[in-house]
Order: sequence, then structure tokens, then C-alpha cells
Amino acid sequence: MTVGVCYFPEHWSRERWETDISQMAEAGIEYVRMGEFAWGRIEPERGTFDFAWLDEAVELIGEFGMKAVLCTPTATPPKWLVDEHPDVRQRDRDGTPREWGSRRFTCFNSPTYRSETERIVGVLTERYADNPHVAGWQTDNEFGCHETVTCYCEDCGEAFSEWLADSYETVADLNEAWGTAFWSQQYDDFESVDPPKPTPAANHPSRVLAYERFSNDSVAEYNRLHADLIREANDEWFVTHNFMGGFSLDAFRLADDLDFLSWDSYPTGFVQDRQPDTPTADELRAGNPDQVSMNHDLQRGAKGKPFWVMEQQPGDINWPPQSPQPADGAMRLWAHHAVAHGADAVVYFRWRRCRQGQEQYHAGLRRQDGSPDRGYREASTAADELFDLDSVDASVALVHDYESLWATRSQPLSPDWDYWNHLRTYYDTLRARGVQVDIVSPEASLERYDAVVAPTLYLVGDELSTALTDYVDSGGSLLLGARTGEKDPYNQLHESLAPGPLTSLTGARVARHETLPDHIETRLSYDGATYEFRTWASWLAPEDGVPRGEYRTGEAAGNTAIVRNDAGNGTVTYCGCWPGDDLADALVTELLDAAGVEYTERFPDGVRVMERDGYTWALNFTSDPVTLTVPDSAGFLLGEATVDAFDIAVLDGSIGGVGLGSE
Amino acid sequence: MTVGVCYFPEHWSRERWETDISQMAEAGIEYVRMGEFAWGRIEPERGTFDFAWLDEAVELIGEFGMKAVLCTPTATPPKWLVDEHPDVRQRDRDGTPREWGSRRFTCFNSPTYRSETERIVGVLTERYADNPHVAGWQTDNEFGCHETVTCYCEDCGEAFSEWLADSYETVADLNEAWGTAFWSQQYDDFESVDPPKPTPAANHPSRVLAYERFSNDSVAEYNRLHADLIREANDEWFVTHNFMGGFSLDAFRLADDLDFLSWDSYPTGFVQDRQPDTPTADELRAGNPDQVSMNHDLQRGAKGKPFWVMEQQPGDINWPPQSPQPADGAMRLWAHHAVAHGADAVVYFRWRRCRQGQEQYHAGLRRQDGSPDRGYREASTAADELFDLDSVDASVALVHDYESLWATRSQPLSPDWDYWNHLRTYYDTLRARGVQVDIVSPEASLERYDAVVAPTLYLVGDELSTALTDYVDSGGSLLLGARTGEKDPYNQLHESLAPGPLTSLTGARVARHETLPDHIETRLSYDGATYEFRTWASWLAPEDGVPRGEYRTGEAAGNTAIVRNDAGNGTVTYCGCWPGDDLADALVTELLDAAGVEYTERFPDGVRVMERDGYTWALNFTSDPVTLTVPDSAGFLLGEATVDAFDIAVLDGSIGGVGLGSE
Amino acid sequence: MTVGVCYFPEHWSRERWETDISQMAEAGIEYVRMGEFAWGRIEPERGTFDFAWLDEAVELIGEFGMKAVLCTPTATPPKWLVDEHPDVRQRDRDGTPREWGSRRFTCFNSPTYRSETERIVGVLTERYADNPHVAGWQTDNEFGCHETVTCYCEDCGEAFSEWLADSYETVADLNEAWGTAFWSQQYDDFESVDPPKPTPAANHPSRVLAYERFSNDSVAEYNRLHADLIREANDEWFVTHNFMGGFSLDAFRLADDLDFLSWDSYPTGFVQDRQPDTPTADELRAGNPDQVSMNHDLQRGAKGKPFWVMEQQPGDINWPPQSPQPADGAMRLWAHHAVAHGADAVVYFRWRRCRQGQEQYHAGLRRQDGSPDRGYREASTAADELFDLDSVDASVALVHDYESLWATRSQPLSPDWDYWNHLRTYYDTLRARGVQVDIVSPEASLERYDAVVAPTLYLVGDELSTALTDYVDSGGSLLLGARTGEKDPYNQLHESLAPGPLTSLTGARVARHETLPDHIETRLSYDGATYEFRTWASWLAPEDGVPRGEYRTGEAAGNTAIVRNDAGNGTVTYCGCWPGDDLADALVTELLDAAGVEYTERFPDGVRVMERDGYTWALNFTSDPVTLTVPDSAGFLLGEATVDAFDIAVLDGSIGGVGLGSE
Repeated sequence: MTVGVCYFPEHWSRERWETDISQMAEAGIEYVRMGEFAWGRIEPERGTFDFAWLDEAVELIGEFGMKAVLCTPTATPPKWLVDEHPDVRQRDRDGTPREWGSRRFTCFNSPTYRSETERIVGVLTERYADNPHVAGWQTDNEFGCHETVTCYCEDCGEAFSEWLADSYETVADLNEAWGTAFWSQQYDDFESVDPPKPTPAANHPSRVLAYERFSNDSVAEYNRLHADLIREANDEWFVTHNFMGGFSLDAFRLADDLDFLSWDSYPTGFVQDRQPDTPTADELRAGNPDQVSMNHDLQRGAKGKPFWVMEQQPGDINWPPQSPQPADGAMRLWAHHAVAHGADAVVYFRWRRCRQGQEQYHAGLRRQDGSPDRGYREASTAADELFDLDSVDASVALVHDYESLWATRSQPLSPDWDYWNHLRTYYDTLRARGVQVDIVSPEASLERYDAVVAPTLYLVGDELSTALTDYVDSGGSLLLGARTGEKDPYNQLHESLAPGPLTSLTGARVARHETLPDHIETRLSYDGATYEFRTWASWLAPEDGVPRGEYRTGEAAGNTAIVRNDAGNGTVTYCGCWPGDDLADALVTELLDAAGVEYTERFPDGVRVMERDGYTWALNFTSDPVTLTVPDSAGFLLGEATVDAFDIAVLDGSIGGVGLGSE
Repeated sequence: MTVGVCYFPEHWSRERWETDISQMAEAGIEYVRMGEFAWGRIEPERGTFDFAWLDEAVELIGEFGMKAVLCTPTATPPKWLVDEHPDVRQRDRDGTPREWGSRRFTCFNSPTYRSETERIVGVLTERYADNPHVAGWQTDNEFGCHETVTCYCEDCGEAFSEWLADSYETVADLNEAWGTAFWSQQYDDFESVDPPKPTPAANHPSRVLAYERFSNDSVAEYNRLHADLIREANDEWFVTHNFMGGFSLDAFRLADDLDFLSWDSYPTGFVQDRQPDTPTADELRAGNPDQVSMNHDLQRGAKGKPFWVMEQQPGDINWPPQSPQPADGAMRLWAHHAVAHGADAVVYFRWRRCRQGQEQYHAGLRRQDGSPDRGYREASTAADELFDLDSVDASVALVHDYESLWATRSQPLSPDWDYWNHLRTYYDTLRARGVQVDIVSPEASLERYDAVVAPTLYLVGDELSTALTDYVDSGGSLLLGARTGEKDPYNQLHESLAPGPLTSLTGARVARHETLPDHIETRLSYDGATYEFRTWASWLAPEDGVPRGEYRTGEAAGNTAIVRNDAGNGTVTYCGCWPGDDLADALVTELLDAAGVEYTERFPDGVRVMERDGYTWALNFTSDPVTLTVPDSAGFLLGEATVDAFDIAVLDGSIGGVGLGSE
Repeated sequence: MTVGVCYFPEHWSRERWETDISQMAEAGIEYVRMGEFAWGRIEPERGTFDFAWLDEAVELIGEFGMKAVLCTPTATPPKWLVDEHPDVRQRDRDGTPREWGSRRFTCFNSPTYRSETERIVGVLTERYADNPHVAGWQTDNEFGCHETVTCYCEDCGEAFSEWLADSYETVADLNEAWGTAFWSQQYDDFESVDPPKPTPAANHPSRVLAYERFSNDSVAEYNRLHADLIREANDEWFVTHNFMGGFSLDAFRLADDLDFLSWDSYPTGFVQDRQPDTPTADELRAGNPDQVSMNHDLQRGAKGKPFWVMEQQPGDINWPPQSPQPADGAMRLWAHHAVAHGADAVVYFRWRRCRQGQEQYHAGLRRQDGSPDRGYREASTAADELFDLDSVDASVALVHDYESLWATRSQPLSPDWDYWNHLRTYYDTLRARGVQVDIVSPEASLERYDAVVAPTLYLVGDELSTALTDYVDSGGSLLLGARTGEKDPYNQLHESLAPGPLTSLTGARVARHETLPDHIETRLSYDGATYEFRTWASWLAPEDGVPRGEYRTGEAAGNTAIVRNDAGNGTVTYCGCWPGDDLADALVTELLDAAGVEYTERFPDGVRVMERDGYTWALNFTSDPVTLTVPDSAGFLLGEATVDAFDIAVLDGSIGGVGLGSE
């Protein structure tokens, strides 16, 4: 387990590099990521390449005993390229071009840009094919950042038609699968299916979903271009991509072409821009641990192996609404947090605050004058403390489906519906109970898990239905949540009532559903107690299933909210509403009990414990110290029973028996 | 009085139709609306028509003793047509085309689309000209839905110039009428007058108003195309159009070409998206009765005859922010409510929840698997209970002027000014007092009404002024509200102070006006008591009129707020501000007293009584039972003195003496 | 000191002019501004001029002993011109043209529009060159109103490249100055630098700042076109332009080409649309005195000489969210307020409410029927009371920098950062203490000031650094605020930590900065007391400077917030955060004490005293009377010790010793 840093030699004078790189080595840094925005420096005019600077930087990194991670620089083509080929620009839904002058504005389907990509990636990978200091590659940078997964240019229009022609036998099949009889939306041929541009009312949901799939496939195909060239040059290099947190680009879809996944973690930003509640003071200082964990577990779960944090927040950052200073200790805390969740490397973004351009207000480990900032000292401490570990062993899987995210996003039925936050309700509960969780795709094999939580498998076809049924039949414990099985894979309602093909598994049908605003009272009874729920309520009609929860308020009163069904050797619970935290905890602990999965007491917000390879981490993301109770057998590798504000403890021993002191 | 349903045979397999249609007949349904989005099914490629399916559906409907209401399918042309003729698309103000893929995106002024319309409507109406099962037609569908009354394409530009050339003798007349000396806005010829596209500051209000008139005339002209072809084929068919609720398309303007009006009523949606206040729990379950009544009374008032509800909410709906389940009983309540206000038919939208496309989350009377939903049972009950009636006899008219709506909307002078909600203040008061109201246009003859309320006749020319004066002279009682007579019909201020030509009738001038935000205190005294008002205050300078109300707060203090004037044999009251509910009640009851119109006690929100043809309805839109007091002479046709939550009672007898129990 | 009025003879029939103009003269009006929107009337078709009407109007004005101020009519070209040359239209960032039909939509860089401008301005100025009744000219009207300073058309694209070629030796210099190595933003030549159109992420801040500078230079160059032609025709005419309040167009940049500055003052609008807090009832009636004063002091400070209010609010206005009636007395109060701050003329906008077009709901001194409104009587009283005065003598300068406004606006780092309101925190404090303030540009000579406050000199190069250092060295007292010296003049961070070149002067560096939302607690200690601050906190690392304030909350606790440094014969205080009002008062009074500048007690909000030429004004912008204490020596020229609601008092004597009665 190790620490790295992102470095931009092209921002600084050659004279400085040696100092910079030696200071990295002193800090214990082992990997240096470079080059992701350097195309303009590498090829200042068409066909004229300047590699000397990059050669030297890589050489210096090697000299100091570190490895370089290089990036394909396609997120920022030079101006001359775009002036020559304005067709490479993406277009907004209304046709406005996305202009050169920031980043990630080029079209994944542009034949021109694909050929330019092959050219520059080819030259670059060839150059460093035999360089012993290059460990591997990152493809491009944050695919889809700034809402650029989808594009509406002519190249995309043509590619979409081709993609559809590959996806369906005939256009009649497409018409049937989508249900285009509605509002006269029949197509005569694949050529006539356009990207969903601005229409007075909403676009057809099946068309919108198809366009999301197509767009994600386009990114995957574009990524494959890079991966193939990289491997062609040197098949010992690793290939990864740096994904974003809480985002909608389908990481599972790209995973096959990558050796491992990596992602960019900015905790104090995420609490401001991708959680619904106003962040607390502590969250502004260190982020929300579960929000970050969820991303770690997804990156690890996608490949079933350790991941990297390719960009780790180093201090204050520029892009959220506010730029608070992280807490003292947060930069070290985040590194341990990532490692505890299965990270093999934590690469801080970036070495040094940049004087130029759009990210001047984004800190580095060192300040713009070269002096160390708090991040430098904390990264150095972390580098010193981290040690090698096997991967995380999770007995619970949480099934996450990007397609269900896209589909419910286009038909939310309430301004308060939020796929990620609904998923978080279940995920956070698992984390509060100290349970290790793999976040996996609906295609993942579930055999090896004792319990599975699937908060919103919205699109369910026969294949998925069979997989879930098989899992339960063979003894698995399954918890399903709101909006399960509402649609078929093409985004039509099933012919039968929801949950469609899962009806027999769940032993219940959805008689009716509704959404309600927060100011309306929503309660239900479950197992003798009363609980809050919110936003979504499906009224269940039990068939073979046993009613376990009943609505107590409003029109829903008297209807079943939660059903449990025994099927084969297993059991499945179907919760038709979005549970409050207490109900989620009741549902999850019942599931874990049924599955025989051990769990801890319920830890309070901001305090979390986790286990990797026989070691247990206790992390305090709050400004108040907390005191742990630990089994006598466990020894403290780092820290002690009282964990200070924003501090950590690491025990040599498993998580069982770890709790909070009771005073 | 009867019940109907909207049906889409094209969404379901042929095998199912007979079952569906027999179940309709069992429920007591008499009308089946079809075809409004079926162009793609009828003409799958240019010139190749498939009528077999529709023939069969109509035949089956006839076999089961029902009638078909067919629709011209022009709201959704097939893709091939738009690919052939992209010029048929409307354009947004900034030029962005409104694309195929939803509905109502074609330009009312496109010569191409008009000729395509004539072609398809011609073929269709000819085919069914002699079919005994077709009762009549609906033209197109919800003209203007999704903000499509106005379009900014080149065809509209040319048509606008021609429309202006028809409206004015010379361009000098236009310049004079609009007042184009302001900011050098003179035109040299009609050709140079464009649609009002994006400008840094607001467009000229006279130009904006002219464009609204032109756009509404364009819809009317386009509707006439349909109506003429339908009548040409069979002049015994009725022709109607389904208008929307609380909308700005001028229903009065289209009324001449229709046999009766109809509209689409979605109570739980309207309380969420076209009322300013957060909806209450009861409103989310059954809507606001006055909001719905206002639309009923407008549809009836426009032609002075019974109307249809062409689409009646059947259960949960997809388009408002939230999708609550309606209350048990609401679907029946709405049918009675419509009939009590003069509906001859209540057509539920739609038979069955659709598995495909944009409206999957819109309920039907039956669910997608064909099983009955609550709506089916309630519609069936309503069909059983409804009986035939003469129209509503209203002694009070409320004058509504679409042009004043458009004109004040473009110069609101306060974010809180809302034409419809200001009108509602007066209308709701009348309804709380059990008064039957015709909502009529400014051109309507007022003779037959004992009292007239005109909340905002903003644009007043000599003709309207004379009509109002004549009405009062011959003994009428008139109540005028805020912003009366501020402008002439071309949206210029009058040469004299407001209310311009109504000065002598009202006996007062507007010395000054102001708007104020809600956090500023606004009170006035009227008839010895103190009342709240809001948003708008005109300070009146009485001439012959008698001051009846005086402002008591802020800069306005001491100025006259309300004036009463006797003119001829009648009397007119002019209220210069937007009254609070209590003041509106005081003004309205004084008006009714003066006019000798009977009224009830003031019913609380959500409980309403109304009379049609000698019968009285008491409707409870709340979740609490209410107990009525009724005259001994009246017998209960339906229900009893205690009206349960979301329930009704019908009395055989007039409304006089109906009240609420006093315990 | 005198009163004027804006008049639009083209809005009224010729018969009325004599009445209007005689009534102006009766009211004591001396200047009549005309013609700023009259191009369409002057040149109804190309090359055909109609001057007769304007000749007559000017003649009548002269006959009644007044002077005309004429305007170049280029804010509203006639329709025929734009139809001939659609290229004169500006374009939005996304390319949408700004259409004819309101005003100020033409491009400052359009060669066509420049040549049309020269043509019309040439003809007009020539015509009136020898007219004895024309006193001077206003160029165009409110340059940049409705967000039109920047344009993104092709002409601007080309002009930007030329402007850059003039600003930099080589494109390599530009690349170096901007720092284009970041995200591969290097340019090969000046031609390839485009206007900053829509990009997925933000544009490069140096490019954005350059475009702001270019755009402002374009306005200045366009203004010069007018000024040169006016002076060529008659060099005794004055030339001015009417700027807007609280706006971002660089008034300093245009000042050189103008004889004096003027601006348009609408107090009840400004409190609604350019202050963050909800306006109080009193502010809705008379505005906020400091908000208006700041603009007066800027217009005076820019040229160091008296200014005009070219448009003074006459009553209710149409463009803010709400249109409250101003308080009785407000129109007179505003005139005195302007004069006390250095106005030589207060020109009311406008003579008479216009019946036509976009500003019907904007009052005039007289109503649309010609009758006097309150404004007429108050303007007349003011005209009677005003007397001649020398300019204001200010011993304190507040340095305002438009470029820092632009640059911080594009990198605010918090939704709560607001350049103007941060500046207001210091300015309002000075005004509450009765201190006369010149608002000056960073290029202004500071020698003559005893104390200088520079709230946000964000962009600091060597020149400015030297000027500030020289000022302090020679004994000046300087107070610097948040975000001082963060950037170099090209919007790069300095190589050293902030405040860059001011480090030695301030004796401190910025170790770290942060922004925080309002719900987070933020306090500091200063001089033994505890104070609130908000939004921004720089954590200072004192070098030679003495720590004077220390953060007490959050992560900042223990870090230095305020530093004081003695340098040469002077002293400088650097406050790293946005102070609350009490802290601002403590900082400012300490500064004034150090500088030996006298000040009054701290007056409450809405009550202000000011001095000009040996006279002292006490103005009451509140609805409660206030009682002054005055030195025995001072006599009341107007009013008395008790100043009524929205009333004034003028003392013959300086401000020293004026205070509020203590009961």
C-alpha cells in the first residue's frame, strides 16, 4: 500500500524539477502520475513532437526510485487541432458546440478525433514502451466530467443509428422493444432514429435509455482504443482510468478493458455538491465517510480487486460552492480510509498549487512558492504508516445498476427521488454496522455472498430475475428496495404488475405506487414498531409472501409496505418504500441475522470501523474524540482506544467485538 | 349525463380489444375517445393507409352499444413526414427547433403542415362519414400544451406580417396604435415586423400582445381547418376540442368553430403546478374544488351551454412534481363535480395504464395487466348515479379576458402578480357562497346577469366601456378589480389616467399605483372594519364616486382604495387593490345584496355546494366529514346530511337554505 | 447646483410642447436632456433627415431660458438599418443574436455600426454646432445596460485578436503572461485566440479577464468616436455619459474622454436588485443612502470633480421586482443627497409618464395626462433650495478596481462573495462616521489623502505595489482587505504567496485561505474584543507585521486574521477576512485616528451626515424623525435640529460636532 502524487512538470521551469522530485521521494512517495493534459506541450504543432521534457521528468523519477504513471493526453487537444477540425467538438442538446478552452469537450464518436487519438497515443506509448520507470497508464482523464458523457453532434447521430442496427435485428424489433406505437413514434429504419434533442414534452423513455447506453458504450469503445494501443506497446504495463465519485458513467462497462479501477476522491466537495442535505461543520472539514466509502467499494467491487485513488484531495479545493480548509489530519485520514477499503495506492492531486489557469484555487501538497502545505506532511506520515495487505473480504454485496440510475433519473416521479441517496440509505446502514460490502453490478455472480442488498433494480429481465431467484434458492438472503422490477430492460412496464418477473420470488405484486412531498406525514409499522419512510411508497399485494410492514398514514394506511418470502433455501425481503434510517437498520440487521453475517453495534454518524486482511480500522471523521472498546486479543498497530478528532486507530485483529465505550 | 373513456387500441393486441370494450360497457361507459395520437399507425408510410384496426375498434364499440369520439391525429405526425419536411417544426424564441419525438411541436402556420393536415383529416373524416358509431370529433389534442401556442419560425414571421397587414390599414396606423416612437421602434412596412425574438431588454408590450393575438388566431385558424373538413364530411357530427386547465390559449376565440367545449381535468396535478401555495394534504388527494370549478364554469360560460370533461383524472398521474394516490372516492367526486357545473359527459383518461412511452406513470381505470384499479369501480359507480339535467342557470357572470391575462403577464410589476390567482380571489368567494357563476368573455352579452364581477379588465376600449356602462345603466351591479382599464386595446396607457374610458362609470381616477412584497404590512378599512390586501394597490381619486375603502398602512395611508358609484339604474364598485379573502367576501356579498342575488353562508375551504337544474350538490373535498343543514322540503337523492370524507350528497331541491350544521 | 429633466418631445404632439416646456421653466428646471432614443424620428429612412422637430424643441427650451443637453441616439438604431445590416447585432455567448426591438444591442466593434455611428453623430453635431441653446452632449445611453458590455460576434472575435496583438509583443508573451501550459491552452498566433464561448468547464481566468478588458476598451473606443465628433463640431460643449449604479463597466476607463461623469440613480430599485439582503420598508421607500452615496463618490472620485445625476428617480419605477411608491419627500431628499456628495446638476428622468412602449410603468415628474405628480412638486422645491458650491473635499480615499471586480467575479470561491458588498462594508462604515470619501482607481495619485482604504486590490503588479508602498512610506495610513494581492495583473497567482509584491509592505504572507457558508460560526478577537466575520478568511503568517487579530473558531482558530505593519512614516493594516460591521468600524476608526482624520459618532442606518464646501447636510432616509445635536456656531440653512421622516437639514458650518441627541 503506497502513496503517490500527480505532477505537472510542464507548469514549472526545468530548474525546479529536481527539487520537486527529490522532495517527493523524501515524503515516501512511490508513484508520480503525469501528462494527462500535456498534448499541447508534447506536440506544439502538427507532427512536431517535443518529448525531451517528459523523458527527463520520467528519468528523474526513476533516479529517485519512483515509478511514473503516464496518461494519454486526449482530454485537452491543442488549439491547432480543433481549429483544423472543428467537427471534433461535442454539441449540447440544442446544438451549441462545446468549445475548446477547458477540457473533455471532444466527441467520443468523432472519426476524426478517434484517428487523432490513435496517432498521439500511438506515438506516446511507442516512445515509452521500453522505459523501465513507467509502471502503467491512465487513459484520458475523468471521462464524462462536466456532463460530457452524452453529445448530440452529427457523428453521434450516425453512430447511434449504427449502434441500434447492431443491437436489434430489424427496426420492427426496435419498435416492439421500445413501444413506439405511443404518440406515433414508430421508425421506418435505423437511420431515422436521432439523438433525443429538445422536444416540447419529454422524450420517449426507451429512446432516452438507449441513448444513455449508446453514450456509455461510446466511452467504453473510445477507452478501448487507448487500452489496446497501450498494451500493444508493452503488455506489462497496467491500464487504468480515473473515474469520478457519485457519477453516472458506467464504471462496470469500462472495467473489462482496465487492469484495475481508480477514482478521484474529494470529500469536502462531495458533501457540498452531491448530497441533498446541507453539510455539517464536520463534513465540511473531512467529508462524509460513507459517501467516500461507497465509491471505494464500487471501484473495488467492479473488478473484485484492489483499486487506486488516482486523485486524493490534498487541501482546499476550488470547485465546490465553498472552499473550507480540511481538518488537520484529514489528508492522512483519507489515505487510511481508502486503504482500509481496498486501495493499493493513494495518489494525491497534486504536488504543488498551480499559478496558472482554471485550478489556481486548488491546493497541492506544496504551495505555489514550493513550500510545504499541511497536505505534504500528512501524506508523508501516511506513506510511513501504510503497509501491504490482501484485499477486502466482503460477505455482503450491494447491487448497483447504472441503467436503473439513468432510467429512474429520467422518470423520477418526485423532485426528491435520487437514486444514489436511496442506495446510500441501505449502504450507510451496512457501514454503521461495520459490515464489509462489495458494490457489484447486476451481472456479477452473487454466489460468494451470504447476503445481498439491491436497493433499486428497476430494469429487470428474465436473466436478472433468474440470477436472483437462483441466489435465493440456493440459500441466499436478499433484500430488495423501492422501485424494484418496475420496468423491463427496454424501459417498458412489464405486462404484469411490478415487480414483473420477480413476482414469484418476492411473493407480492405492486398494487399501486405514489410519491409524496416531505411535508406530508409518512409512517409505517414493522415488527411491532413505528418507523418513518419518505418520498416513495409502493402498496404491495402479498401473494405467497408474508406481510411484514404496513403503512399507517394517508391513503396508503392499511396497505402492505414490506413483504418477506421464503424461496428455496433462502429468503427475500421486499421493502416497497424508501425507508428512514431506523427502518433501514431494522431491515438490514434482520437480513444479516438471517444470513449469519456478523455485525457491530450501530456506530454514530462520522465514526466508522472497517476490516481488511485481518486488520481493523477505526476512523473518526468528527471533531469530538471517541473511545473504542476492543477485544482483549487485539493490539493497536496505530493509535489507541481513544481516537482523537479526525484521527485513526488500526488494530491487529478482526472487527468482531469492536464497539464504542459506553460512558 | 354520462361517462366515457379514452382508449388506445393501437397500444394493445387485437385479441384484447373485445375484453376491454366489453368491460367498458359493463361499467356503464357510453363514449370512447380514440385516435388522437395514431397518425403513425394509420399512415405507416406516405399514402399507405391502414384503417382496418380503427374500423374494427369502432365496430366493436358500436356492437357494445357505445359511441366513438374520434380525433384528428395531428398532434403527432409520423417521423417520415418530419424527415421529409423539417420545416413543419416550431422554433423556440432563440431559433432552436422543437423536435419530433414527443407531441404538439408542429407549426400552426406552416403551409406544409396545413396541407398535410388537410390530407390526413380529409382521408379520415371521409372514411367514417357514414359510420353510425361515430358521434363526433375532437380536433387535434390540447392545442398549446407544453408552451407551444407561440412559435418563432420563418413561416410564423411571414404569417405575422400578413396578419398585421390584415389588422391595420397602413403601417402608419400600426405605428400609431402601438406607439413605436418609443426607443425608435417605427416600422416602414408590415414585412419588417418580426416575431419578438430575444432582446437585451424587454420587447415592446404592444408588439408582444399583437404576437399573442396572432398566435391565438393562428391556432383558431388551424382548428377551423379541422372543423370545416369534419363538418364537410358529416354535418351531424359534433366538433369539439379538449382545452387545458388554467391555461392561456384563448378558448373563447376557438369556441365559434366548436359545437361545445371540453377540457382535461387533473385536480391533483393542478394544485401542485398552477397554484402559488404549497398544496395541503387534502388538496394532494382530491384537488382544490374552486380551481376545478373555475375551469368548468369557463368551459360552460364560453358557449353558454353544457361542456364535456374530455379527460378526467383516473388515479395517480405522472406529470406533476409528486404523484400522490387520489383519495378513495375522488374519481367519483370529480365526476359529480363536473356534472353539477354543467358537464354532459365525463370521459376518463384513460382505459388502461400504458406499458410504453412517456405516460407509463399515468394511471388508467384499469392497470397495465388489465385488472381494475380504483378508478374503474368509481367511474362505474358514477355512471350509475348520474342522470340527465338541463344546464346550469347562473345569475352572476365573472368576466375573464385572455388578452388582459397576456398583457399583465408581460408587465406584472411584481413577481407576485398572477392574473389567474387574482381572478380566483373573487371566484372562490362566489363559490364559497354557493353562487352559480358563468365565466364569460368581455364580448359576452351581460344583460341576463343580475351581477357581474370583472377582476381585471386591463385592456379597455370604447366598445367594452360602452357595454359595461350600458349594463350598469340598465340596473346591473358591477364589481371591478385591480388593474382595471389601465390600457387601451393596443396595450398603450390611455391618454387620461386609469381606468381611462371607465372613469365616468367608476367615478374615480387612479392617482397612483404600487406593488409591494408580502413582508410589507398592507391593510385598509372598509365599512368600519379592517382588512388585509396584497401585492397591488391603486390609489384612487374619487370624482363622482363615493370612497368606501381607505388604505391604512405605508405611503398609501389616507388614500382611497375602494370607490362605489351609482350610474343610471345600477351601481358599480371599483376595488383598486388585490383583496384578501375576507375583503373579497365583503365586496362580493355587498354586490350580491345590491343585485338581489341569493347566497349561502360562507362555506369553509374544500366544502362546496352548487345547483344545476333544480338539484343541489354538496361536495366534500376534505378528509373530515361535514354535516349539512338542509330545508325540510329537500330530499336526498344521493347521500345524506352527513357527507363523509371525499363524498357527496345530492338534494332534489334548490340551494337556498343549505348550510353547515353548527355544532 | 441645479435641476434638470429628461424630455421626449417625440412622444407627444407638437401642440403640447409649449405647455410642457413652460411648466419646466416654472419648476426652476435649467437643463433639458433629449434625443437619446430618437434616431428613428431623426432619420426615418436612410439619408432622409427630419430635424425640424428637434430644432423646434431646442428653440423652445432656449426661449424659456433653459439649456438643452443632447444625446447621440445610437442606443436605438432604426429597424431599416438593422434589416440592411444584421451584422451590427451583438451575439450572446452561445451565438444567439441580440435582436432589434429594445435597446443597446449593437456591437461596439462592428465596423458597420461604427461607420453608421460616425454618420449620424456627424450629421447631428454639425447641425447644432452653432446653436446657443445646446449646452453639451451625452454619448449614447447607459453603455452596457442589460448585460451588453460583452459580445461574442465575429467582429468581436477579430477585434479581440487585434487588441491582443497590440497588448503583447509576441504570442509567446501572451502564453507566458496567461500561463497557457495549463490544460494545453497554448496559442500559436493571435488570430487563434477566440472570445470565451461556452465550454464544459470554466474558461481560463486570464483569457476571461483579457476579454473583460478588451470589452471595456471597446466601449471606451466607441465612446471616443462620439466624443471626438462632438468636440470637433464645437469644443465648448461638454461631453458626458450616463453610467449606471453598482455596475461593472469601467467608468475610470471612459473618464478621460469625458468632461465630467454622470450617472442614473434609482434608489428604490437598487435596494431590490443589487443588495443581498431583503430591503426594509424604509429602503423600499427611499433607498439605502450608502448604496447611492457610493455611486456619487465614485462618479466624483473618477474625475476628481463634480458630477451630474443624469437620471434621477421621479416616482415609481418599472424595472425592479416590485414598484413601491417612494416616500413623500424622497424625490427632494435624493436631490439634496446628490448635491451634498458633489453633484452639480440633478436631472430627473423624466418629464412625463410615457403612454407607449416598454416604460409605461415608469413615472415622470408629471403623469401621462399632463397633471403634476408628487415628483414635480418635490423637484420644484429642490430647484428652489439648491445653491452653488465648490466640490467636496475628501481626506480619505477608497480604492476601487474594476479589474479586481471582474477577476473575483469569475473566481468567487463562494456563492456569498460579492465584490461590491465587500467594498460596501468598509464604505458604509466611513459614511456612518460622517467621513467624506473619494472613490478612486488604483492608478489615482494618493498623495493628497490622509488615509486610504483598499478593500480588494486583487490584481497587484509592481507599479501598484510601489505606489502603495510610497504612499505609506511618506506617512500615509492604509487599510487593506480580503483577497488583497492574490493575483498578478494577468490573473496568475504570484510566484510568492499572497499578497505577492505587497508582502514586505504588509509584513505578512497568506499561509492559507478558506471560504465558509453563513451557517458556520466565524469569530475572531481583535484588540481585546470578539467580532464576527463572514465568507472569506485568509490565515496570515506575520513576518515584520504585528498580529492584531486572531481567529477563534473552526480550523482557523489560532491563526492570525489581521496584521499591522509600520513602514516608513506610515502604517498599514491588513485584514484577511470580510469583517462584520462592528469590526469594520473598529478597523476604520483606528485608521482614522492614526491618520488624524476627524469623524463623527457612529450614525444609525438610514441617517447620514456629509459635508461639502463648508456646509453640512443631515439626511433622514427613515420613517422616524431624528434629532441632531449641532455646535452652537452652526446655523440651519434648511430645516432644524429635528429632522422629520425622509427630510433634510442643512447647516452653515462644517460637520465637526454634529451628532444625534442622546435621549
